[in-house]
Amino acid sequence: MTDMAAVFGASLFGLGVVVYMLRSISSIPVKHEKAAQIAAAIRAGAMTFLWEEYRIITAVVAVIVGLIWYVVGSVAGMCFALGAFSSMLTGFIGMCAATDANVRTALAAKEKGEHAAFQMAFFGGGVMGFAVASFGLFCMGSIAYLFSTNPDSYVIYLTCFGFGSSMVAFFARIGGGIFTKSADVGADLVGKLEAGIPEDDPRNPAVIADNVGDCVGDTAGMGADIYESYIGAMVSSTILAVKGFSFPDLATEQLYVQLPLMLSVFGLVGSVGGLMANFVLRLQPAAMLRNASYIAIVIFLALAYGYLTMHGMGMELFISIILGCISGIVIGLITEYYTGSTPVERLADISRSGAATNIIYGLSIGMESTALPVIILAGVVLTSYKFGGGDFGVSIAAVSMLATVGISMTVDAYGPIADNAGGIAEMAGFDPSVRKITDKLDALGNTTAAIGKGFAIGSALLASLALFTAYAQAAHIDTLNILDPMIIVGIFLGGVMPFLVSALTMRSVGKAALEMVLEVRRQFKEIPGIMTGKALPDYKQCVAISTRAALREMMLPGIITVLVPVVIKFGFGYAFGRVAGIEALGGLLVGATVTGVLLALMMANGGGAWDNAKKYIEAGHCGGRGSEAHRAAITGDTVGDPFKDTSGPSLNILIKLMSIIALLLAQI
Amino acid sequence: MTDMAAVFGASLFGLGVVVYMLRSISSIPVKHEKAAQIAAAIRAGAMTFLWEEYRIITAVVAVIVGLIWYVVGSVAGMCFALGAFSSMLTGFIGMCAATDANVRTALAAKEKGEHAAFQMAFFGGGVMGFAVASFGLFCMGSIAYLFSTNPDSYVIYLTCFGFGSSMVAFFARIGGGIFTKSADVGADLVGKLEAGIPEDDPRNPAVIADNVGDCVGDTAGMGADIYESYIGAMVSSTILAVKGFSFPDLATEQLYVQLPLMLSVFGLVGSVGGLMANFVLRLQPAAMLRNASYIAIVIFLALAYGYLTMHGMGMELFISIILGCISGIVIGLITEYYTGSTPVERLADISRSGAATNIIYGLSIGMESTALPVIILAGVVLTSYKFGGGDFGVSIAAVSMLATVGISMTVDAYGPIADNAGGIAEMAGFDPSVRKITDKLDALGNTTAAIGKGFAIGSALLASLALFTAYAQAAHIDTLNILDPMIIVGIFLGGVMPFLVSALTMRSVGKAALEMVLEVRRQFKEIPGIMTGKALPDYKQCVAISTRAALREMMLPGIITVLVPVVIKFGFGYAFGRVAGIEALGGLLVGATVTGVLLALMMANGGGAWDNAKKYIEAGHCGGRGSEAHRAAITGDTVGDPFKDTSGPSLNILIKLMSIIALLLAQI
Repeated sequence: MTDMAAVFGASLFGLGVVVYMLRSISSIPVKHEKAAQIAAAIRAGAMTFLWEEYRIITAVVAVIVGLIWYVVGSVAGMCFALGAFSSMLTGFIGMCAATDANVRTALAAKEKGEHAAFQMAFFGGGVMGFAVASFGLFCMGSIAYLFSTNPDSYVIYLTCFGFGSSMVAFFARIGGGIFTKSADVGADLVGKLEAGIPEDDPRNPAVIADNVGDCVGDTAGMGADIYESYIGAMVSSTILAVKGFSFPDLATEQLYVQLPLMLSVFGLVGSVGGLMANFVLRLQPAAMLRNASYIAIVIFLALAYGYLTMHGMGMELFISIILGCISGIVIGLITEYYTGSTPVERLADISRSGAATNIIYGLSIGMESTALPVIILAGVVLTSYKFGGGDFGVSIAAVSMLATVGISMTVDAYGPIADNAGGIAEMAGFDPSVRKITDKLDALGNTTAAIGKGFAIGSALLASLALFTAYAQAAHIDTLNILDPMIIVGIFLGGVMPFLVSALTMRSVGKAALEMVLEVRRQFKEIPGIMTGKALPDYKQCVAISTRAALREMMLPGIITVLVPVVIKFGFGYAFGRVAGIEALGGLLVGATVTGVLLALMMANGGGAWDNAKKYIEAGHCGGRGSEAHRAAITGDTVGDPFKDTSGPSLNILIKLMSIIALLLAQI
Repeated sequence: MTDMAAVFGASLFGLGVVVYMLRSISSIPVKHEKAAQIAAAIRAGAMTFLWEEYRIITAVVAVIVGLIWYVVGSVAGMCFALGAFSSMLTGFIGMCAATDANVRTALAAKEKGEHAAFQMAFFGGGVMGFAVASFGLFCMGSIAYLFSTNPDSYVIYLTCFGFGSSMVAFFARIGGGIFTKSADVGADLVGKLEAGIPEDDPRNPAVIADNVGDCVGDTAGMGADIYESYIGAMVSSTILAVKGFSFPDLATEQLYVQLPLMLSVFGLVGSVGGLMANFVLRLQPAAMLRNASYIAIVIFLALAYGYLTMHGMGMELFISIILGCISGIVIGLITEYYTGSTPVERLADISRSGAATNIIYGLSIGMESTALPVIILAGVVLTSYKFGGGDFGVSIAAVSMLATVGISMTVDAYGPIADNAGGIAEMAGFDPSVRKITDKLDALGNTTAAIGKGFAIGSALLASLALFTAYAQAAHIDTLNILDPMIIVGIFLGGVMPFLVSALTMRSVGKAALEMVLEVRRQFKEIPGIMTGKALPDYKQCVAISTRAALREMMLPGIITVLVPVVIKFGFGYAFGRVAGIEALGGLLVGATVTGVLLALMMANGGGAWDNAKKYIEAGHCGGRGSEAHRAAITGDTVGDPFKDTSGPSLNILIKLMSIIALLLAQI
């Protein structure tokens, strides 16, 4: 039980860090009226959306809780609700911090300079980062504390808890992603390309909606996403430990079953270490962002090594732990290469022949970028089998990748805050030097955020493999033979799922963006004096359009994803016998995981490459701003937006959501 | 042996049809000097490219023949060479006919009207269609006649023959695809978008290259592609018949082993029937194109039913045959829906908000369009297992889909001829009414060609499944358990292959198009008087650029595709034991087939939707020519070009090429 004390101690300490950061943000007064007004408008828009979104999600959650309560039992239903509500709470707290920090970052940049601004944005991101780590650990710890004595029900409760967090993450990612990208695309297409006004110009009717989008998509949506990844890795690993081994005694079993939790404790301690290092070392922001993560990983590895040695757990698992950390970093570096180096320069160069070749080349970068990460993850799986901890080792690698989520999520959430601060600075009419600082901080975040996406996808693949193994164990099958038609058909149908869901989410962005474009054009035409600054555009109408579109469009993908595994299992089971249902569902998971991971990589990296090619041209290369190449690059960036911020990230969640539903179906 | 007489009789009769059509085309004199000159330039460009391409392919073929000769034996090497050279010969004959028929179609439209022009283009396509059907059947028949008495070597020889045709098809598709799309994109981007001159305007320096591209890509490349599909289906089915059953007696065995050949005989007879119907009925061209295919299928089904009944082979196989035909048609109709109906109108509508939303929406159409075809093919596989002929039935469904290739390939090859005729009419300065006729004929071909693509992808999936089953049998394994890490890793690595190869081919088109754009821009700048028509552009330079780019860029994808299966088998075999190599290679095939089929569907349908959205706008909707929506639609069409004519179709071949290499590796 000393381990459980560590779990609760660490998570409460982490929550203390969250409260400290929240208070140090809000204790700084906002002494600039216009900036305060703009920030209040962004906050109001974000809160309205989140409120409406959570209301709808709560309704869905209530239905599923009812179903689980009825079919499985009351505690299982409550675990699902815990997963769902803890995710929503995390997103809410993180977004409060972000909307508090954005205006203060802008003011800090104006009054105190780069370092103070960096600190403020970093704290804003830190609230989300440490909230994710602490809430996740606390909830997992609570379930372990209450139910781990009965392995069978423990596994079901964990599954339901993971299901809840996945369900919310899926809706939050898609809803937030559609909101932010419809606003962004709408603002860019009419504002930048047609009216020729710069980004974040207050004359653009969609500008507030665009900034609200950063908060609800890039902050709240991403928070729920990472929370789900973190939980998903721990859940799958714990279930494998409970189900997969026969232990000599109870004490050894406890060690293995609690290892995922302990690794997360070490990761949280490491994250705090990385955070402290930022105070002590006072390096340049760029170095800090990087070092904070590296220091966290080193502390994490040292603690993990000490723990394994102390309990004589053998070094195979440590190999898996190192594999997880290293492969996460390497995939991040590959992401950085494809989204920030030679490929991006070539993409910028080829943009000189127009938008079409920019799109063709960008897609090809995205497609090519799938190869190395998959090869590396294949290496992790094979090495784990040959030298590491086998199936359990693979899941431990996923847990290790995400253990330092406190600090890596901080870096992820810091970027949108800096971005938002720039928008506020622009709209409040601050000196351009302020915008320069926030732009620099934003750019730093982009690169590091790319690494974060590598972690998310890599861990999704490994966690899904672990969930898949757990599924087979729960369904009591040793063999899923691809030569069997049920399985091959299942694989093909599963392979379709990510394509179908991406199609729906991309189309939603396209449709919502069209609505936004027409509205912005209408306002430019019907409200005289917008362009001269004499009349204010109707910002609220644009926020309302994005809100409506996002809430309307997030339902269908969610329903499809939840229903398909159920239909496959019972449909095939009915037509070809119970085993066929289990087999087809197993195939479905494999197919969805393969195409899901590949499409997610393609979309994340392709989107990043387009984004950075545009920025590279804007920095003065290949003709610079206003050139033919620039126009082409803006088109590419606009296509890349839903790729990297809506459809792509939702696929990571999709594959785990389907896996966890399958796992639940196998147990009832 | 009466069956073998039917095989040779039908194939020789088919060749007779080819010779008849060739002669009736060339017997018509070309009495218009300027048109003749243009046609000669197109023909010279096409022949130069084909000659250069075949030289390089021959070198590769020689190396592989040498390897096979050394490792497997001389006859196997010669079978590979037969597959390769018969494919090249088919492509060559088809292209000769196309370059003869294009100018005569233009003249027929000018002098005799629509029906004569249709007849000429249809005959031009017919040469390719019946050459594919007859050569394929003749070569398969010859191998059966010579070697079918020894099952083991028969299977190896068939594998090598199929390998040869796949290898050539892969190069021809990629090389031809890069040529045609670099020329097309280059001509469109500078000519249409920048200089504002219409399509096929003789002032455009890339115009001859564009027309050459239609011949080498859409005719020769597609011919090799369909030849490979036709062979691939027969080969996989025959191998399953040889390997998969234990027969009561030799006579029954012969019946099953020869069934794929006999079905192709019936399909060829049906195709001739469909052709004759065109003479007898003299309907409108649109009705003819459709009816010719339907009549062919009805005759085919009747003959197949009679044959199965006569030999008492049971109705399970007839269910599979019907499933093949119906699913092919249904997938074609789905293709037609996504590339010609509501989705296209919505795509055109959404183009009003610019190129970016056009791209986003078009990609989403492509992605969504993967779902129904896969569900239908899943239904075919499941139905075949429950009511039809099992594994063998699945392969028979693939054979049935392609049995009427004579007529369906005719329709496929007819489109580019009509397209080319339009180009010649434009360049030779014919009256616009001529162009109107050829445009109408071209448009008719587009819809029917979409159905052809559905057949190609559907049969590729079913044939690959059959090859996969044959692989497992040849490698003497009953179980490929996805829970085994070797297999799951193999699946992921295989899943990457189509992404990687698509990335390479798309990038090649992008790079080659950039070269072309720069050259066309240079000519407009440096050759005074092009725009006023006083000076001729340097057409040859543009042809040379496409030729060089295509030949340079087709090598890498080919080498990767051939080497990866070899490396996986021996690499995994070396590191984890022989069985691991077999398992990983099996996984590789499944992974490549899943993502290959899905990406191929997405690219074919997305590309078709973009193409037709542009045409829909050009017909006067959503603002018509010159509107913002039109500019956006041109960008979409340009992205769609490599999708539907280079990368997408090469994936059908990729999955069969990898499967057949694996099958060969399993046997040596």
